[in-house]
Amino acid sequence: MKIAELSRQSGVAVPTIKYYLREGLLPPGERSAPNQASYDERHLRRLRLIRALVELAQVPVAGVRAVLEAVDSPTMPLHDQIGAAHRAITPRRELRSTVDTRAAAAAEVEELLTRRGWSVTANAPALATLVDTVAAFRALGQDHLVAFLDSYAEAVERFTELEIAAVQSRETTDQVAESVVIGTILGETLISSLRLLAQESISAQRLKPSS
Amino acid sequence: MKIAELSRQSGVAVPTIKYYLREGLLPPGERSAPNQASYDERHLRRLRLIRALVELAQVPVAGVRAVLEAVDSPTMPLHDQIGAAHRAITPRRELRSTVDTRAAAAAEVEELLTRRGWSVTANAPALATLVDTVAAFRALGQDHLVAFLDSYAEAVERFTELEIAAVQSRETTDQVAESVVIGTILGETLISSLRLLAQESISAQRLKPSS
Repeated sequence: MKIAELSRQSGVAVPTIKYYLREGLLPPGERSAPNQASYDERHLRRLRLIRALVELAQVPVAGVRAVLEAVDSPTMPLHDQIGAAHRAITPRRELRSTVDTRAAAAAEVEELLTRRGWSVTANAPALATLVDTVAAFRALGQDHLVAFLDSYAEAVERFTELEIAAVQSRETTDQVAESVVIGTILGETLISSLRLLAQESISAQRLKPSS
Repeated sequence: MKIAELSRQSGVAVPTIKYYLREGLLPPGERSAPNQASYDERHLRRLRLIRALVELAQVPVAGVRAVLEAVDSPTMPLHDQIGAAHRAITPRRELRSTVDTRAAAAAEVEELLTRRGWSVTANAPALATLVDTVAAFRALGQDHLVAFLDSYAEAVERFTELEIAAVQSRETTDQVAESVVIGTILGETLISSLRLLAQESISAQRLKPSS
């Protein structure tokens, strides 16, 4: 198909497609004439992935490039592809300065990981974010909310097990890689929106004045 | 305390504190001399909250203002305060254009809400995000991941019930309001980082080459 058709089918404007081509996010089409290239299903699918990453998960272009390189790498172990997806979405949240209670929060998170038997690298960005968040909850006097850390961890563990099993059931390594990355990044948007809807529904029942 | 001490205790630079004062995010201190104001614990606490919202949850300044107005309102019902917190964090994710499978995804989400007995407003931003995300999963050929929608919803429902019960146990309406907003916004960062750590740990066990 021509670029106009690729634009129509993907819902991405032609200048944006050209930008993705220049940035190397989208592989070039097959040249059919000096000034014309032809695109196929592979381009459409890749374009949909880029669009979901950029618009839905708000991953910056540099992050998208890193994620796609991980997906396309025939040799990168899956575990490292997950790591690349994590790095693409975590740098967004970082407390620049330290909080008084950070050391206590780090010890608390360490104990949680031990209780749950989770083994993670010491420099995982999500580990720093978790410690900062626990410290912020404590500094803001919200200790009663940190009390649920174990319940949260247990719930998260349950659906992560399901996700990893589903991803492993994919046929080709290409499909597994793509699935891992999409599941990691878009899964976050999925869970976040579900949580907001659950809050709206439950708070309407419990917290609305009965007047 | 003077502004320099407020800066030291909060870890927020003096020019940033002055910016928050100008923007009305932080209430003015008590004037102790023509060119000097005095701040108290209330300012320190508010500054910690602003910092957590801006740096950890990446809420833009306009969103922070809306959230603080909701927290400070003596008359706004709690359910609406949660709504204000939701609006502050959801506009970040929106697909600008429609996906082919959007209508099917909307029906699917509608059925999920019915199955779970969730009652949400038709124009909730999180509803649009959830529909867009389900549509994106389908368009990207990740139907096996959408299969967990009910498991995700169930897990999320369980810890939302816990959160709302904890928030209701707070003593004053001020405390309840602050707790609701912090729980809504920072809870998202907490769950997201826990999920990334669970993925890292479980994928290390299941997906790493055993070589």
